[in-house]
Amino acid sequence: MQLYELELNDGRRISPFVWRVKLALAQKGIAADTIGIGFGDKDKIAFSGQGLVPVLRDGDRVVSDSWDIACYLEDQYPDTPSIFGGPVGRGLARFVARWTDITMLGNLAVLMMPCVFDHVPERDRAYFRQDREKRFGMTLEQMREDPEGKIAAFRQILLPMRVCLRDQPFLSGDAPAYADFCVFGGFIWAASVSDYKLLSNDDLLYAWRERMMGRFEALISASPGVVFT
Amino acid sequence: MQLYELELNDGRRISPFVWRVKLALAQKGIAADTIGIGFGDKDKIAFSGQGLVPVLRDGDRVVSDSWDIACYLEDQYPDTPSIFGGPVGRGLARFVARWTDITMLGNLAVLMMPCVFDHVPERDRAYFRQDREKRFGMTLEQMREDPEGKIAAFRQILLPMRVCLRDQPFLSGDAPAYADFCVFGGFIWAASVSDYKLLSNDDLLYAWRERMMGRFEALISASPGVVFT
Repeated sequence: MQLYELELNDGRRISPFVWRVKLALAQKGIAADTIGIGFGDKDKIAFSGQGLVPVLRDGDRVVSDSWDIACYLEDQYPDTPSIFGGPVGRGLARFVARWTDITMLGNLAVLMMPCVFDHVPERDRAYFRQDREKRFGMTLEQMREDPEGKIAAFRQILLPMRVCLRDQPFLSGDAPAYADFCVFGGFIWAASVSDYKLLSNDDLLYAWRERMMGRFEALISASPGVVFT
Repeated sequence: MQLYELELNDGRRISPFVWRVKLALAQKGIAADTIGIGFGDKDKIAFSGQGLVPVLRDGDRVVSDSWDIACYLEDQYPDTPSIFGGPVGRGLARFVARWTDITMLGNLAVLMMPCVFDHVPERDRAYFRQDREKRFGMTLEQMREDPEGKIAAFRQILLPMRVCLRDQPFLSGDAPAYADFCVFGGFIWAASVSDYKLLSNDDLLYAWRERMMGRFEALISASPGVVFT
């Protein structure tokens, strides 16, 4: 099995969507070779019929999109540990995935883009700057402004998670599952490129993140540059 | 089985937390007598050791708090249709319940309080006004201002649900479960006291709400004053 992912300088693998898949593979105990590509290497995944990572190649099968890959793994390898815990868990995991995309990653994006830029290889920098500045309607330098305010707002929007974690150790209950991977993937992304302190040490989410790190220590320590603060 | 709930003028049963329980009972096919109480009737549920509805009395057992009641029903009546679909579904339902409390109900609250007030019995109006004006830091008249702006903001915060419903008919997947009851309970609350058009007809959430109404038509039509717009 081969997993194509985004690779920046020093081997940093940052895509929060790829991380969802890597955590799912780890939970299932399925080994995959990872192949890092750059922003300018879309031709290397052209065989998937689209231009975004993650892309999974499993023998003759090619699957793209993190959600579709998760469903493929769950359905194709039913004897491995589940990442959804049944149909209701799968349905709700999709909601949490969308909530993570829009609310968590959406609120982190402006803060993180300049940090990502600092790790983009020289050859892709012009593309990255132009693309992200157009998408967000401001320069990378403007995005760097007021990190404290952005972090405060980010912490605030995580409140539903924090309140949930008063009563259970993981978003998915007593053990982590795909919904936890979505949120944790966002934190790995951030920890791969920045040393912003996104969570205070007394935050219930900090303790949850520590539990996730404990569960997936081997996977994370094998990935360059991931430092949680 | 007896369920204590909040009752306003004309028999309106508005508590979004009670609705979670009523929908859970309906899904499970469990009959319960409902007992309506007013804001000033906390003595009638003093036997539960606290002052908030819902309170469920099942023979000798008394359970309060909508989440605890849902868990009680799921565990005590395992042969009835599930409202969680297993441990992961239960864990994630708790997250969606908290998301609903904070994000959905939190954003609706200011808009709805004056509408609730219009249906509060005369004897409880002074209490209700004082309590809610203190809690929200503004008068009921101020809360009535700019409903269009509040509705636009409310529609915006539902985006993760809307995107999720592009790909599946219910939040919980192919069939409704407790997470759907939480959000639907919020809409029933609103529809019990106001005729604000919270959802445009072309919203995927509107279609979802119609599906929920279809599933629980008997329950809803038996409750006075619920009109979806």
